[in-house]
Amino acid sequence: MDTHAADLPLPVKAALCSGASFWQTKTVLGLQAITLTDGPHGVRVQHAASDHLGVGASSPATCFPPAAGLAQSWDRDLVHRVAGAIADEARSLGVSVVLGPGVNIKRDPRCGRNFEYFSEDPLLSGSLGAAWVTGLQERGVGASVKHFAANNTETDRMRSDSQVDARALREIYLKSFERVVTEAQPWTVMCAYNKVNGVYASQNRWLLTDVLREEWGFDGLVVSDWGAVADRVAALAAGLDLAMPGGDSSSDDDVVAAVHAGRLDEDLVDDSATRVLRLLRRAAPAQPAAIERQAHHLLAREAATRSIVMLKNHDAALPLSGDESIAVIGHFAVEPRYQGGGSSHINAAELDIPLEEIRARARGQVAYAEGGDAAISAARTADAAVVFLGLSDQDESEGYDRTHIDLPDEQIRLLEAVCAVQPRTVAVLSHGGIVRLSGVNRCAAAILDGALLGQGGGSAIADILFGVADPSGRLAETVPARLQDAPSYLTFPGEHSQVRYGESIFVGYRGYDARDIEVTFPFGHGLSYTEFHYSDLAATADHHGIAVSVTVTNVGNRDGRDVIQVYLSFPESTLSRPPQELRAFDVVELERGAATTVTMHIPRADIAHWDDRIESWVVEGGRCSVRVGRSSRNILCRTDVQVVGDAAHPPLTADSTLGELLSDPVIGPRLAEQFQAMAPGDSLGTDVVKMISSMPLSRLKTFGAGDAVAAVEQMLSDGAESPAESP
Amino acid sequence: MDTHAADLPLPVKAALCSGASFWQTKTVLGLQAITLTDGPHGVRVQHAASDHLGVGASSPATCFPPAAGLAQSWDRDLVHRVAGAIADEARSLGVSVVLGPGVNIKRDPRCGRNFEYFSEDPLLSGSLGAAWVTGLQERGVGASVKHFAANNTETDRMRSDSQVDARALREIYLKSFERVVTEAQPWTVMCAYNKVNGVYASQNRWLLTDVLREEWGFDGLVVSDWGAVADRVAALAAGLDLAMPGGDSSSDDDVVAAVHAGRLDEDLVDDSATRVLRLLRRAAPAQPAAIERQAHHLLAREAATRSIVMLKNHDAALPLSGDESIAVIGHFAVEPRYQGGGSSHINAAELDIPLEEIRARARGQVAYAEGGDAAISAARTADAAVVFLGLSDQDESEGYDRTHIDLPDEQIRLLEAVCAVQPRTVAVLSHGGIVRLSGVNRCAAAILDGALLGQGGGSAIADILFGVADPSGRLAETVPARLQDAPSYLTFPGEHSQVRYGESIFVGYRGYDARDIEVTFPFGHGLSYTEFHYSDLAATADHHGIAVSVTVTNVGNRDGRDVIQVYLSFPESTLSRPPQELRAFDVVELERGAATTVTMHIPRADIAHWDDRIESWVVEGGRCSVRVGRSSRNILCRTDVQVVGDAAHPPLTADSTLGELLSDPVIGPRLAEQFQAMAPGDSLGTDVVKMISSMPLSRLKTFGAGDAVAAVEQMLSDGAESPAESP
Repeated sequence: MDTHAADLPLPVKAALCSGASFWQTKTVLGLQAITLTDGPHGVRVQHAASDHLGVGASSPATCFPPAAGLAQSWDRDLVHRVAGAIADEARSLGVSVVLGPGVNIKRDPRCGRNFEYFSEDPLLSGSLGAAWVTGLQERGVGASVKHFAANNTETDRMRSDSQVDARALREIYLKSFERVVTEAQPWTVMCAYNKVNGVYASQNRWLLTDVLREEWGFDGLVVSDWGAVADRVAALAAGLDLAMPGGDSSSDDDVVAAVHAGRLDEDLVDDSATRVLRLLRRAAPAQPAAIERQAHHLLAREAATRSIVMLKNHDAALPLSGDESIAVIGHFAVEPRYQGGGSSHINAAELDIPLEEIRARARGQVAYAEGGDAAISAARTADAAVVFLGLSDQDESEGYDRTHIDLPDEQIRLLEAVCAVQPRTVAVLSHGGIVRLSGVNRCAAAILDGALLGQGGGSAIADILFGVADPSGRLAETVPARLQDAPSYLTFPGEHSQVRYGESIFVGYRGYDARDIEVTFPFGHGLSYTEFHYSDLAATADHHGIAVSVTVTNVGNRDGRDVIQVYLSFPESTLSRPPQELRAFDVVELERGAATTVTMHIPRADIAHWDDRIESWVVEGGRCSVRVGRSSRNILCRTDVQVVGDAAHPPLTADSTLGELLSDPVIGPRLAEQFQAMAPGDSLGTDVVKMISSMPLSRLKTFGAGDAVAAVEQMLSDGAESPAESP
Repeated sequence: MDTHAADLPLPVKAALCSGASFWQTKTVLGLQAITLTDGPHGVRVQHAASDHLGVGASSPATCFPPAAGLAQSWDRDLVHRVAGAIADEARSLGVSVVLGPGVNIKRDPRCGRNFEYFSEDPLLSGSLGAAWVTGLQERGVGASVKHFAANNTETDRMRSDSQVDARALREIYLKSFERVVTEAQPWTVMCAYNKVNGVYASQNRWLLTDVLREEWGFDGLVVSDWGAVADRVAALAAGLDLAMPGGDSSSDDDVVAAVHAGRLDEDLVDDSATRVLRLLRRAAPAQPAAIERQAHHLLAREAATRSIVMLKNHDAALPLSGDESIAVIGHFAVEPRYQGGGSSHINAAELDIPLEEIRARARGQVAYAEGGDAAISAARTADAAVVFLGLSDQDESEGYDRTHIDLPDEQIRLLEAVCAVQPRTVAVLSHGGIVRLSGVNRCAAAILDGALLGQGGGSAIADILFGVADPSGRLAETVPARLQDAPSYLTFPGEHSQVRYGESIFVGYRGYDARDIEVTFPFGHGLSYTEFHYSDLAATADHHGIAVSVTVTNVGNRDGRDVIQVYLSFPESTLSRPPQELRAFDVVELERGAATTVTMHIPRADIAHWDDRIESWVVEGGRCSVRVGRSSRNILCRTDVQVVGDAAHPPLTADSTLGELLSDPVIGPRLAEQFQAMAPGDSLGTDVVKMISSMPLSRLKTFGAGDAVAAVEQMLSDGAESPAESP
């Protein structure tokens, strides 16, 4: 049982709640200080004394695919194993908490930090985030789910106010965090730099206490993003336990002074200090593990392989047989772009070079050219060309946003020139944020999208190119035809430190679908070398949720992996809703000819929407269309279930409209009687009853109908209306 | 000089501030009670005792084109004359205030009341609204500019909260009201039903007092929309002078009680009662005028003629020579739809029937068929077909919104069948809100868009068809290719009484242009039977604004009218801006071969944007592209002027970012010195300085740089930074 910190002197408690140095906590009671350090696709431990900004060189570590790549695996088990390996490396380096995963939603393709986040979809983000936390913590190292919350812009990130309506906040932006917290119980949550609806996340009591602890039951510690605390006293009052980085004790003094002045409740300091002590205790048992470098590199390769999405494969351009002569083109073939810039930047322990890995697998001649005429002539004389395209470290990074999503012009020109002489041209893409692909799609015969693949990317690309592995990655983010089509296009990155989330819940495919906009590659898209067939889709609904089962058969000629995606739609909904939403997914691995039945359960909580009138999750009753497909725009089978709604809507009051009252089975007829007396005429060229049905009951008083209003109000206070219930 | 109401007993003052009956004020001091009544495209006076809801039959009056039609004239002078005629009719009917004009912005094509509003653009709305007010008030009748403000949805209109960001509110939604108030000094402003950013317009002191009176200098009276007052005391405190309708004295008692209880300042009651007295006095001198029925009908015809937009004229299908045999098809040819449903519904004194007017002008045979096979065979054997299409009273009205913008399917099928047998087919459109026209545009040879034309529409349509008049109307609203393309598509009409204006300033063409979305017919579009040429465009900028002149020559074969449209663009702006905005327009009438030079002045205030950081209008300096064209997407000539910006931006403080401070010519170099000491390393795969440039100065303390921060703060308090100035 934890010792409560209440017995410690106030200055000690205040001091415990801020770091001792850039990466370390303070300590008391004989507990060891612990080290928290950057992640999350590897461990970034600075080996020398850290500089002021924590940007110095770090120890070698395995660089797994950053989230933008790893998410394309849609593979919880893989993510779990990757996190376990990272935990082992952390322990060997004396690290108790790795600062990850990043489960922020990719609201806009331009966000500079999208490469550290999983998806535009909260189910995918939250599920992979939970798998990561579980994998890490099972091996004795704590996670720090970040950046809580609504941190979707790098521009002006330390001042900008994310102005998000309640539904979007609950259903999209908080949802991935909620899933991680409730499913995986992370040791820590890291608050974001930005404001959320006017209040800094670090000082936002609604966010850090009401929602995180009281609603979700979080019992861990809230740590600040490094430098996120503007007002230490306000932060502590809101539920921010540990302010990082440390080294400046003046804010500890502020805390002590605030308690003495009665501006801060000492109990809150006790609570936070107690949480710091609990974290120190939790971290203590972790024993250093020896790093299994080779095993981790192989895991990094496996993860990279599963993260590659085959976007296009015209005329079976892939896989290569190995006997072809191949022209490998582009700088990234020899100096791969495999991770993003900023605090997550890993000093990779090893690095597979794509060109070398291609040469190791090819039996035919492999020529390399960075570009120019040499590349064209190499492509012309070869049997196939593989062109590496992508964004550089300078094009995208933590700390700033992109202003466009185009690949460099010269790369597109090079690709076009290659394709003009070589029909069997494969484009291999490396990038943190998505890029516009209409140009690439017009000319390349095949496209492999690696996003960022980590240190094993070189061999993974080669394995996919030659068919050693089946490409099983699926897009975790829509590739729009034009940046202008992005739902958030007009309001990103905001201005004057305000970002208004004008598209509300219509983020990613939810927005493209709602506006019926053509996209280049839809969310969930990815091809395979084999072929899968779905059959026997069945769905049943009960008070636990919806159970879905479908039989998947590998009807192609090769072994392979498939991602089963379940989207739900409520076609008769009275709410503003996306046409469909991802509500379950699973991965299957099937030998050719093999079949399996996949059963997925969608908890009832996952089909609820947020009703801000009663500040509660509510399931809307009615017909639910269950759709299973290979992408959000490639639905292959569907069935219906009937969902029983929650008996929860606001009670009828004098502020209810005549329309609402008239539609109540008990009150309605009685009101209609009262209403007859007012005898509306019909000289307005419209249906007068329909026209005034939006009038609140109470407002009828101003039209001289005080008596009728009083009569209905009496009925309401007598509880005459029908019990609240959805169909 | 006005008598102040302060001397009256409190109950009298309170009573003065609410109506006596549905349409009348109370009175004291021997002043006559006055009548306010519905408009604004004619006078709706109920001739019998009004019913509770004010929906009974009304006296005959001239029905001019509703705003949706009239706005297509872009003609201030015409609007001025129409309002003058309405004033004469009002006086003859004993009406002192006509409740109009409606200058709300057409935010979404589905708003049921769009037919009562002018445009999606605030300059066009505000200019025509000001012309209407001036025309009315010059003839002794008061206007009531409505519905103030952000009333852009009929759904749940008495509870819904319009949640609009500051820039959109100022630059789009308030702008048309600001123009009317400052240019035309309306006697009254009518507050809207809805809430604006959380507070009922009727109780919104910021809106009714801070902005309307203190910023804009409004000295008239604020009247409630009928039934808009939820809390009379709160409304009076906010600056709502006259609560309508009257008849229920209980809220007067509430006012008295609130003053006695100290919850309401009696001075505020005095102010409002004084404004009521001033209105009674202003209204008193109006002498009844005889209605010149015939002159007004001719004016209604002229207005209708100028309101018709020729959207398409393939192969010179129009004008008809008069010698053709013509098939006239569709119910609206004999029962025209010429106004909208709801409070503005006029009991039209006369009505021109399109079929009769066509027959009166044609020398060839004119056959009529409502539809069906008869219509097809009539069209087949005629030389030309004229098909009347449109929306019915039931499709759209005050009080509810549309859910789609399609014409009825059977109309499109009929048109297609007619076009299949008759290539010279003219579609004539009647509708309050815009309709999707891709289907009509695919098959009809010519399209005349009448919107709603009032009682003279029948002859106006015939005059345009036969070339008696040149079509000079221009669209006041974009016709999108699909409803899904509308900027507000995803957030209209909101839900749970909340409407979030997610598209911000990107309303109408501003949004279609910003996303580069193809439209069927752009804002400002309209064809003529003749042809105009623009030349000698010149623009100069000074501290008063921008002066633009352009020479317009009628180079076609007929006399005609043209609308000159001036759009401004700031291509180097650092702000979030539409690609261009309408900033001036004028109408010219030119005989064939004639030329004129049109000079327009754009006041400096009209090129400012709202800067919510300093709560002020600011002109951004830099290159301004001046574009003159025949629609927002048909720019024919352009020139540049250099605009000197306002010296107004927030001062540098400790909350300024390193990036902001480093770019200051004085502080920047000194900060850079301090910054060297922190010596950021370079192991993060990114430009560290760029990455951290968004950090606020004060936050550097948490990174142990307290001394450097203190040094810069000292510089700031010494006033070392360069004077605030834009280029």
